[in-house]
Amino acid sequence: MKVYKKAILPLGFKANGVSCGIKKSGKPDLALFYSQAPAKAACLFTTNKIQAAPIRLNKEHLKMNGNFRGLIVNSGNANAFTGKSGLKDARDSVKVLAERLRVKEKEVLAASTGIIGRRLPIVKIKKAVPELVGGLSSNGIKKAAKAIMTTDTFSKEITVRFNLGKKVVTVCGIAKGAGMIAPNMATMLAFIFTDANITAMALSRALKGCADKSFHCITVDGCMSTNDSLMLLANSACANILIDKGRNLKQFIRALDIVCLELAKMIVLDAEGATKFVQIKVSGAKNFNQAKKAALKIANSSLFKTAIYGQNPNFGRIVSALGSSGIEVEEEGLKIKVSPLHKKEITIGVALNKGSASATVYTSDLTPEYVRINAGYN
Amino acid sequence: MKVYKKAILPLGFKANGVSCGIKKSGKPDLALFYSQAPAKAACLFTTNKIQAAPIRLNKEHLKMNGNFRGLIVNSGNANAFTGKSGLKDARDSVKVLAERLRVKEKEVLAASTGIIGRRLPIVKIKKAVPELVGGLSSNGIKKAAKAIMTTDTFSKEITVRFNLGKKVVTVCGIAKGAGMIAPNMATMLAFIFTDANITAMALSRALKGCADKSFHCITVDGCMSTNDSLMLLANSACANILIDKGRNLKQFIRALDIVCLELAKMIVLDAEGATKFVQIKVSGAKNFNQAKKAALKIANSSLFKTAIYGQNPNFGRIVSALGSSGIEVEEEGLKIKVSPLHKKEITIGVALNKGSASATVYTSDLTPEYVRINAGYN
Repeated sequence: MKVYKKAILPLGFKANGVSCGIKKSGKPDLALFYSQAPAKAACLFTTNKIQAAPIRLNKEHLKMNGNFRGLIVNSGNANAFTGKSGLKDARDSVKVLAERLRVKEKEVLAASTGIIGRRLPIVKIKKAVPELVGGLSSNGIKKAAKAIMTTDTFSKEITVRFNLGKKVVTVCGIAKGAGMIAPNMATMLAFIFTDANITAMALSRALKGCADKSFHCITVDGCMSTNDSLMLLANSACANILIDKGRNLKQFIRALDIVCLELAKMIVLDAEGATKFVQIKVSGAKNFNQAKKAALKIANSSLFKTAIYGQNPNFGRIVSALGSSGIEVEEEGLKIKVSPLHKKEITIGVALNKGSASATVYTSDLTPEYVRINAGYN
Repeated sequence: MKVYKKAILPLGFKANGVSCGIKKSGKPDLALFYSQAPAKAACLFTTNKIQAAPIRLNKEHLKMNGNFRGLIVNSGNANAFTGKSGLKDARDSVKVLAERLRVKEKEVLAASTGIIGRRLPIVKIKKAVPELVGGLSSNGIKKAAKAIMTTDTFSKEITVRFNLGKKVVTVCGIAKGAGMIAPNMATMLAFIFTDANITAMALSRALKGCADKSFHCITVDGCMSTNDSLMLLANSACANILIDKGRNLKQFIRALDIVCLELAKMIVLDAEGATKFVQIKVSGAKNFNQAKKAALKIANSSLFKTAIYGQNPNFGRIVSALGSSGIEVEEEGLKIKVSPLHKKEITIGVALNKGSASATVYTSDLTPEYVRINAGYN
């Protein structure tokens, strides 16, 4: 199992990223991912009741078929809370792209991120499609990773390779953060590509399992987005023996685990205004869900987060968050450990003394810079 | 019904506040409230599973009897997460005070606020008891109101007077904020005194009802304290006809409503680092609880609060908070109104179009100053 801290597209995938003018800054804002062969897709979307137009469109397409060729992503505009017009805009952009790629409309997925409540500048997107498709290349993933960024300060990329029989399977992921990050679904945009030959059922279960321990265990501000999407495309280009269960599936899951957890951690590392990377491990819980609930309550406490920023060892804020988390907790037997706060990476250990389950959650501190970024973002 | 924006002790009550040395600054940190006649008490305490020592002691006393003579309150130390020693400290301070007041131990209530997890400096408190008792006076409430403050920038006081037969009933309240404020119990310290002659049952129900619409509808940072206490003492000194139900009770509740809501609003006005006072009204809900849940989800969203600070009319953050609140909401029919953001007082109106219930919640903005205060508080 080899890990690369950069994106390397698996066999049979191409990508590109361009500036189409959605962002006033002129920075790249439109990305395309293309699979030469039909790819199976496993997707997890936000559980927010208000769902962005591209998510509603993807759900339609996922019901209609199981094979995908393209994925178009724009940043700078979320195309959320845009009603029927928003859905039409998403459909139009997918239609124009599908024609250019010479694939079916239903074989294209879409994602958007950025400001909520504004119409998508569909004319700009349509105009950029020829350049976007024309520039597709097997090393275009870096451009694509840049084009999906909003307030991110670095692009989030990871690749894992492992041997399966005589073949080398590649699993490559990119993601964007950096605010409105809470668990309870893929809480951002993350796209993972693999050339593995794997059954749709195994792919879908693997993604769910890996997301539960990674993307669903991070929080920046406890705010759940309308656009969160985690998509995994597998195009079988590696031509390995079909992965379905057993040892082969375990290996694939191991690789996917690394990709998901590394991307999730990068999102937290690049959290808006953050100066600290905080790992909260709750152990001694009755079950995983209680441990996770407790860890998330601490992670989402503004008072805890500001104490971390201030390098202020205020145990009381951990205790009061725990006590209000709704899980079983008693003062007696409760143990809390905090690593030195002057470092960038901080570990909080909480032992509940109630059972043997544990969970780890990742978060950042709350800083004046977070407030400044989000006071001005528009 | 006359409203005074200051504390005026009802008949038969005395109060005092002194500096005993808990606060390093030397500011007042010990308060005493005394009733010449036994007073009935109605109390609401935090629902946090980790409860401060004075709360545990009060619960014992409330089980043992229904009449109270004294209430001792210290600031600067929460006496929470202090285990058995903490309970002993609370008991000791009450014991010493009871002796000095020549009342029974079980007739004294206690409250603490400040840092969590440190032993109460009981020797300092014991030493200050003679001065504290000696200085009791019927206009000592201002001193007491100052002595319960922590990061508060002003003391929170309100008095309402109304006629009942030929008598004038006084209801007077004081409170302290200003961080770790979330609903789901009196989320701070608030003490209300009345000379009304009222049954214990009516007193208790009135308090619960009024708290639901006031203290339980405010939030600063969504963090629930281990020490929250709302206490109402009624000593019957006014000698009015016994209030039990009907028109008389309604009048008492009207006065108590004003006292509770005004104190609750003052807590939000004085929220740590706040520059805005925000009223969020959710209407068109299926029931009050759904309306309140939605309003609180918006009020506790860091992204919403920073947008208010930045005077940034970012509707998307209201929409995404609503969608993740767990209540029924649909994009179609949803209406959102925001008053001009450059003013200090801001009103957010959300119409869900799902029913006819509504709820109003009060909150503040999230500012760099909130982060600075809480990064340094220790």
